[in-house]
Amino acid sequence: MTTSPLLVRYAAVRARSLALAAPLSAEDCGAQSMPDASPTKWHLAHTTWFFETFVLQAHEPGFAPFDPAFRVLFNSYYNGVGDRHPRAQRGLLTRPSLADVLAYRASVDQRMARLLPAVAQDAAICTLVELGLQHEQQHQELILTDIKHLLFCNPLRPAYHTGTEGADVSAVPGVPGSCGVSGAADTAAALVWHAFDGGLIDMGHAGDGFAFDNEGPRHRVFVQPFALASRLVSNGEYVDFVEGGGYLDPSLWLAEGWDWRASLGLTQPLYWPRVDGGWSEFTLRGLQPLHAALPVVHLSYYEADAYARWAGARLPTEAEWEHAAAHALEQAERESPCLAADGMGVAPPQPATTHALSAFFGVAWQWTQSSYAPYPGFRVAEGAVGEYNGKFMVNQYVLRGGSCATPPGHERVTYRNFFPATARWQFAGIRLARDPD
Amino acid sequence: MTTSPLLVRYAAVRARSLALAAPLSAEDCGAQSMPDASPTKWHLAHTTWFFETFVLQAHEPGFAPFDPAFRVLFNSYYNGVGDRHPRAQRGLLTRPSLADVLAYRASVDQRMARLLPAVAQDAAICTLVELGLQHEQQHQELILTDIKHLLFCNPLRPAYHTGTEGADVSAVPGVPGSCGVSGAADTAAALVWHAFDGGLIDMGHAGDGFAFDNEGPRHRVFVQPFALASRLVSNGEYVDFVEGGGYLDPSLWLAEGWDWRASLGLTQPLYWPRVDGGWSEFTLRGLQPLHAALPVVHLSYYEADAYARWAGARLPTEAEWEHAAAHALEQAERESPCLAADGMGVAPPQPATTHALSAFFGVAWQWTQSSYAPYPGFRVAEGAVGEYNGKFMVNQYVLRGGSCATPPGHERVTYRNFFPATARWQFAGIRLARDPD
Amino acid sequence: MTTSPLLVRYAAVRARSLALAAPLSAEDCGAQSMPDASPTKWHLAHTTWFFETFVLQAHEPGFAPFDPAFRVLFNSYYNGVGDRHPRAQRGLLTRPSLADVLAYRASVDQRMARLLPAVAQDAAICTLVELGLQHEQQHQELILTDIKHLLFCNPLRPAYHTGTEGADVSAVPGVPGSCGVSGAADTAAALVWHAFDGGLIDMGHAGDGFAFDNEGPRHRVFVQPFALASRLVSNGEYVDFVEGGGYLDPSLWLAEGWDWRASLGLTQPLYWPRVDGGWSEFTLRGLQPLHAALPVVHLSYYEADAYARWAGARLPTEAEWEHAAAHALEQAERESPCLAADGMGVAPPQPATTHALSAFFGVAWQWTQSSYAPYPGFRVAEGAVGEYNGKFMVNQYVLRGGSCATPPGHERVTYRNFFPATARWQFAGIRLARDPD
Amino acid sequence: MTTSPLLVRYAAVRARSLALAAPLSAEDCGAQSMPDASPTKWHLAHTTWFFETFVLQAHEPGFAPFDPAFRVLFNSYYNGVGDRHPRAQRGLLTRPSLADVLAYRASVDQRMARLLPAVAQDAAICTLVELGLQHEQQHQELILTDIKHLLFCNPLRPAYHTGTEGADVSAVPGVPGSCGVSGAADTAAALVWHAFDGGLIDMGHAGDGFAFDNEGPRHRVFVQPFALASRLVSNGEYVDFVEGGGYLDPSLWLAEGWDWRASLGLTQPLYWPRVDGGWSEFTLRGLQPLHAALPVVHLSYYEADAYARWAGARLPTEAEWEHAAAHALEQAERESPCLAADGMGVAPPQPATTHALSAFFGVAWQWTQSSYAPYPGFRVAEGAVGEYNGKFMVNQYVLRGGSCATPPGHERVTYRNFFPATARWQFAGIRLARDPD
Repeated sequence: MTTSPLLVRYAAVRARSLALAAPLSAEDCGAQSMPDASPTKWHLAHTTWFFETFVLQAHEPGFAPFDPAFRVLFNSYYNGVGDRHPRAQRGLLTRPSLADVLAYRASVDQRMARLLPAVAQDAAICTLVELGLQHEQQHQELILTDIKHLLFCNPLRPAYHTGTEGADVSAVPGVPGSCGVSGAADTAAALVWHAFDGGLIDMGHAGDGFAFDNEGPRHRVFVQPFALASRLVSNGEYVDFVEGGGYLDPSLWLAEGWDWRASLGLTQPLYWPRVDGGWSEFTLRGLQPLHAALPVVHLSYYEADAYARWAGARLPTEAEWEHAAAHALEQAERESPCLAADGMGVAPPQPATTHALSAFFGVAWQWTQSSYAPYPGFRVAEGAVGEYNGKFMVNQYVLRGGSCATPPGHERVTYRNFFPATARWQFAGIRLARDPD
Repeated sequence: MTTSPLLVRYAAVRARSLALAAPLSAEDCGAQSMPDASPTKWHLAHTTWFFETFVLQAHEPGFAPFDPAFRVLFNSYYNGVGDRHPRAQRGLLTRPSLADVLAYRASVDQRMARLLPAVAQDAAICTLVELGLQHEQQHQELILTDIKHLLFCNPLRPAYHTGTEGADVSAVPGVPGSCGVSGAADTAAALVWHAFDGGLIDMGHAGDGFAFDNEGPRHRVFVQPFALASRLVSNGEYVDFVEGGGYLDPSLWLAEGWDWRASLGLTQPLYWPRVDGGWSEFTLRGLQPLHAALPVVHLSYYEADAYARWAGARLPTEAEWEHAAAHALEQAERESPCLAADGMGVAPPQPATTHALSAFFGVAWQWTQSSYAPYPGFRVAEGAVGEYNGKFMVNQYVLRGGSCATPPGHERVTYRNFFPATARWQFAGIRLARDPD
Repeated sequence: MTTSPLLVRYAAVRARSLALAAPLSAEDCGAQSMPDASPTKWHLAHTTWFFETFVLQAHEPGFAPFDPAFRVLFNSYYNGVGDRHPRAQRGLLTRPSLADVLAYRASVDQRMARLLPAVAQDAAICTLVELGLQHEQQHQELILTDIKHLLFCNPLRPAYHTGTEGADVSAVPGVPGSCGVSGAADTAAALVWHAFDGGLIDMGHAGDGFAFDNEGPRHRVFVQPFALASRLVSNGEYVDFVEGGGYLDPSLWLAEGWDWRASLGLTQPLYWPRVDGGWSEFTLRGLQPLHAALPVVHLSYYEADAYARWAGARLPTEAEWEHAAAHALEQAERESPCLAADGMGVAPPQPATTHALSAFFGVAWQWTQSSYAPYPGFRVAEGAVGEYNGKFMVNQYVLRGGSCATPPGHERVTYRNFFPATARWQFAGIRLARDPD
Repeated sequence: MTTSPLLVRYAAVRARSLALAAPLSAEDCGAQSMPDASPTKWHLAHTTWFFETFVLQAHEPGFAPFDPAFRVLFNSYYNGVGDRHPRAQRGLLTRPSLADVLAYRASVDQRMARLLPAVAQDAAICTLVELGLQHEQQHQELILTDIKHLLFCNPLRPAYHTGTEGADVSAVPGVPGSCGVSGAADTAAALVWHAFDGGLIDMGHAGDGFAFDNEGPRHRVFVQPFALASRLVSNGEYVDFVEGGGYLDPSLWLAEGWDWRASLGLTQPLYWPRVDGGWSEFTLRGLQPLHAALPVVHLSYYEADAYARWAGARLPTEAEWEHAAAHALEQAERESPCLAADGMGVAPPQPATTHALSAFFGVAWQWTQSSYAPYPGFRVAEGAVGEYNGKFMVNQYVLRGGSCATPPGHERVTYRNFFPATARWQFAGIRLARDPD
């Protein structure tokens, strides 16, 4: 019997979740720092619940649930599946234990391993399994952003991992150094503006590869001429904004952003505590001196928008970003065909190069000015899986690209990430755009 | 000395505000029912403050403020002008009295009457005055929506005005019967779908007439083929949604809308109290039996969106709405040229006609699915006036058209009204759209 | 037909409420500055409602309500009477108008004038009428404290009345100068400690005169020896506390008081805005320079308790206060028998005298350390009137004495006023107590 | 070298805390279900911090802290000691781990074991150590109440311990069966009223034994005649109240209690879920059918007060309770002298006996109507230890006795426990009082 390629992929993705949890204790895995963030244990269980509920329950002969109570405990937001545990109380679920959840994972993995070879020819099931894997990859990023927030709430400022750069890449697969502090150059490359003619373009996903439903249908849009910055805004540039009074000038802020900022008394990014009079940054490696050349991350939409206005620029639209990223990708493939085979052309975690558009992927999510809305012709899928994306299309803003915490291979040029304008705990940064002179 | 046409217009608009306040006592004019709504007295003073601050202070020789304290008391949100009284405490300003505010109006009107003829050739000032008049017209609509909310909070359910239809139109200029209960037909016309090809179209304001900054620049967009409903959703259709369990089925709602609905325990529209087992509607004429043929109004974006999903349709985009409305307007002008001279071709307050698209203006604002965002190339104006629109472009949704409470002549096919998704106290209804079959 | 003495008293008390409202506009009378405070109009209506509901409805032949809706609108908290309008929305009742409420008062007064002579021999009814009058006197004090708070919320800081002292006493009966700024001496008299032996004493009301139910039964308590300050704490002494860092030292505060203070960022009393670098006090005559010799008022229990700790003293218990006040009253009656005939021996609004205990009445309510609790043997009355006092006996603290805003003749040595520990808008000050050395 | 008796006691008390944590995982020990409750791990650390901060730091030669960060992390509310971690975020402290906290305990215990024999003659230090042990016993009760609340928040309703009664008493010293479900009789003994003459009595602690500062000074009070119920209110009696509509009748509730109840929609006790149409009770042994004969527990003050009113009775005062309990204790000692030697005469966890006052200790804390206030002459101690009790003396109510979760030997007839009127998660029940007929 041959091994199913999907099963190989299944095993690899599932293993990576465990690897991400490996540096953490059971105590670390159980705590929830805010309603927006979930415990690692919950992520491990919920991703498993997805496979059990949507794949095994429908297709496994003689299906019996691992534990009927898990159906409620680990449902995130699927009304179609029934009741669910209140989101803000996920940190109170000390039972099942982490060990129990690991046993749950093992059981579902074992059953999936039996099922997958038998259904390898069933496209619908394979699509569903792939959706589950992509879903798990999304939660892998959340494991990192959520544990970072939890650890930051601890006055001890503990590190998620402490190895040297080389060491930790092997120790924690998929957590590149840029999520901590890299050995990057001291200064960022000069920011260069790349001009685009715009016009009638096509955007959104089409074709055979996997994409989430919200990435399609591929459709035509008309884009005005625009220019895009060659790289992301750096920490050093953002320090200039902060120290130049950017957080205290209402003319730079959206009215709602200003009220939000003022009510919380915010004067700097979330993870930038002052230490001994200097700027520090809390990272997955613990507290570090702020590295001026690296891209600024963990900004809300409001902060990104205010910075852009201060810089005489603006945030790009989704269409602008996708158009430029597709262009850069094509160019890269021409120059280096093997990059295409490598998947997404992930930029290495380094300060921007000077000669070209860089850092579309693998560094930081990039706020766009586009509200998260359905593409023309978008339809939600039938059944509970249809609750995946469509019902969140209000009062959120789209981020494009991918961050240092995004699993390798998970990015796509059509990928649409989305968060409320207040969200600060994601690896979200700024790529500037502007209208032609 | 000839009378300035702008002065004539100034006097007419200013007089209409007083006419709207005429049915109200000083007590009515002072109360504030919620932070989103303002007292009538405050509207009367703030619109006056606008002329005093932006026109007289800059251009009146020997300017002296009517009362320096008013600069703070009646500033709405202009950081560029200085401090302002907290929005939620506008109802506590029992001083200045309504009589004082009327004296303030009279003083500013007198000084404006002296100034306007002298500056009639100064285009910049004339534009600023026109902005002030359009601004006052916006507040005229808010006077009606805000007083309606206040009166609804009173268990006595008092009417804003009580005349018969004919009587009240003359008594309260600009408040057509449709804001109360009209003598409309018993059943709504059949809803017909009008198909549009879409394609490359231009949208937004251009040309000489007045428009708010957010209506431009005029720009090109690509629109997919779509269909638009010939008329607005009626009360009777919305009753079917309510009685069919629409408020209790999460699959019909955006996730955020569902949480909002559930946390407030909402099961029906804001102004629909049950009386003796039947549906009633609170109107500016007091409590009335619900009239099935009239358009449903006072819906939030969440409710409008849920209804559309229940009806197998969706809300239109801004571009779709503007495209269809411009088309209908052109057609109407061809058929009845005098309509064009009459301004906006305001549809009379009646159930939709069967043969054509109707009710774009003068009946109810129509939620679009479009987030309120800057058009390509949008720039805010210099100075405090630049705070007029741009800084609100986040987490709000655009409404198009105009309502029964919108001053005649104030509508425009490019007009962009906007409110948060939770807003229910506006005359906001639903025009359905859908993709081609 | 002779005039009933009760009717004379009824007319006098009722007239005083109108006199208190006389300096106010209808707009002033309608606004509500916070849920704890009520509009003047509401006070005028609710006190009338009390007579209509508890006296006329029960005893007037052929009773018909003035307006059935008022039964709900102007019920404060009597569950036994039925529904009531939400407390926080009293300011939204622009209808009935002030004129309507005055007509309501006139109607009830006319009917009471017919009823009272006929029932003069019915002790139960007379007691109920007297309860209504005492109730109205309580609301007379609230009219003043509530309007003061409303006017303070207005940045214009308008005065409730502006006459010279002599003038206003006649213009507004019962609002002595001490509620504004008096022509008091520049410095407070020296604070002297008066020692009491304590022992077995009786406290609480007994006998024929009127008292609220919560003042009885008279009962025996054992009191330890204690000392009481000869006068109230002065503004000047409280300034020393403020400027000495009293609001910033947690060791001086009850833990709950500290959290309350910190969460609101309080650093000084409610009505003490800084003006041009000096201390000012907002009074019923508007903003005035702080008068050091006058008693400090408008303190919360937390502030009073913190000050006492800072001063090396404590607040008295109810029993201590009543014991000392009864003693002082007896002494005063011995020295000046006509004082007794005058009722309560109200101290004139002046800095404390040096030779004796002063200012038990007529200056400021005095926080005691005693929680508001039933006396031994306390029983609530049958029916809705039983809701008058008993159901509030939790999480409130007792104040004794009476303030400059208390109607003359309304005080009693056994009177128990009560407010939550956070209440600042009452005329509440501090009389210190301490244990013997 | 002889073993210090204090060291023996120290070791025993400290060991019991560990025994209470023994049935729990590290995950269980880390979670915090609400701001009022703390994680078990935090209790274990904070009680250790108390000894390190107040004993070792002051008296250990060459003192060095185990970890300087713990000074902040495990400070509960002592402003005198410096900063502290926010109470509501104790559940986020996944570091230090439970293992680290156990090491902290071991280290402090080792150092205390070295120190104690050397200071056995120093009365001040011994008093401080005893305070630390009593403090730890208080937290032992909180470990149980807090973990019970956490486990109840888990839809799995896990049990804290599951052994049979005999088994678990040995497995978890100090957790008697009555905290779960005992093998009690099916029906409660008849409730009998015991009359007391009252008069001048002394209350409060005096003498050599340990007591908290708030239990003194012993002082004289005058008590009216009263009657006290022979036993606590039973679950069965409380069911009658619930099913008789007690939660829906405002006339039974304090006004503030009614608002609290209504705003939360409460209709039954905290731990009484309905299961299959019958009443169940969540206990430390998990969900159990409600046992009618056992005392009702986990009531708020509001609920206890409402029940008492419904039953035609009232809650006792502190003085009444202490007077009766002292009397019962004397009687018991006379009848059974060895009981006195046993300490507190803890009543076994059983339905009340018929012949005498029972269950003063060891069953449930008993709400009194007395606000938590200082006794006459009370002074707080110098230094940070003075923050122990005095600063909480506002807006809380006193409970007397002791519960099934109170460590054996920790009760005292003068003991004053206190909680806000809303607290439901303590083992708090009702002993009725009433005035003589």
